Amino acid sequence: MPMPMPIPGYAYGTPEAARSPITGEELEKLKAAVGFTPEDERYLRRAGDVLEDQIDEVLDVWYGFVGSVPHLLYYFTGPDGQPLPSYLEAVRKRFGQWILDTCRRPYDQQWLDYQHEIALRHHRTKKNRTDGVQAPEHVPLRYLIALTAPIALTIQPFLAKKGHSDEEVEKMHQAWVKAVVLQTALWSYPYAKEGDW
Amino acid sequence: MPMPMPIPGYAYGTPEAARSPITGEELEKLKAAVGFTPEDERYLRRAGDVLEDQIDEVLDVWYGFVGSVPHLLYYFTGPDGQPLPSYLEAVRKRFGQWILDTCRRPYDQQWLDYQHEIALRHHRTKKNRTDGVQAPEHVPLRYLIALTAPIALTIQPFLAKKGHSDEEVEKMHQAWVKAVVLQTALWSYPYAKEGDW
Repeated sequence: MPMPMPIPGYAYGTPEAARSPITGEELEKLKAAVGFTPEDERYLRRAGDVLEDQIDEVLDVWYGFVGSVPHLLYYFTGPDGQPLPSYLEAVRKRFGQWILDTCRRPYDQQWLDYQHEIALRHHRTKKNRTDGVQAPEHVPLRYLIALTAPIALTIQPFLAKKGHSDEEVEKMHQAWVKAVVLQTALWSYPYAKEGDW
Repeated sequence: MPMPMPIPGYAYGTPEAARSPITGEELEKLKAAVGFTPEDERYLRRAGDVLEDQIDEVLDVWYGFVGSVPHLLYYFTGPDGQPLPSYLEAVRKRFGQWILDTCRRPYDQQWLDYQHEIALRHHRTKKNRTDGVQAPEHVPLRYLIALTAPIALTIQPFLAKKGHSDEEVEKMHQAWVKAVVLQTALWSYPYAKEGDW
């Protein structure tokens, strides 16, 4: 097996990743509030196997969506108002890895820390820094939450492409939706007023 | 037809409802970010017809879920730590109406205003006031977002109960998920730091 190419800015498990302010106990309670169970974990592993060789096609759908909504594409534009191809491409590589991490990583302290890093990279705290770009300085909370819907819904046909039964596809999809909502809740942390999160 | 019983605290379209700080243009952009289309509106109308006589059963599932998660039920408890039945019941009536409003109301200024009222009633700004109770003073943002998952997922079997084709059920369900995520994004407003929403 060739070594996979390192992904620039992918700080998972490294000292560059932020340290999450969220405790393990808070994470467990949040998982319960989402309805996330050990069965969902198992179906996410299966979803990872189903999605592994479809990552580019999934990203094409998501990038097609964002590219078709000018006020979303805006967050990838430079001072001249034009989309920044190198920024789009750098985020895309990490986004692909994020799909696999969502399916395969244990949701432990390292994972929690990297979720916080992702949160900060959308918030004005740290947006643009990883890739050294001059794009708009902040992705609003409302769009962070809104994107849960296309990310949750558009994965379904990809889960159905490898001959699993309707019931298995449904269970993989439910696990995916829960995992995405769980992460959106974690990513909202830097946006909330003191004590409101 | 008998007049329906008025629902205490249901301030939709009344001067008691808050005025939303969110503009019509922001709402339209948010709908686009969720991927919400006129087709979704049509499928929501159909979902309303499908759900109309199943509201109590849906609420039983949701209340069963919240009741089974102590740190969620907590937000309905009184100073002695016990759940407040009258509070649970008052919220339940409005929750049932919310299902129908989600499916049938036009997403206009009145609707936007009432979404803001709902937001404030979860946030410390206004929680407990409508029902005059002494429950915990604030539902955290993370749980508001987390509940998107069970609310989005558990409606599916109810949509499938009236003999519609798999494709129609899927389209009603997608419209429902988008509508729920859209509202969660609106409800997050009072939680966000100045300029972060």
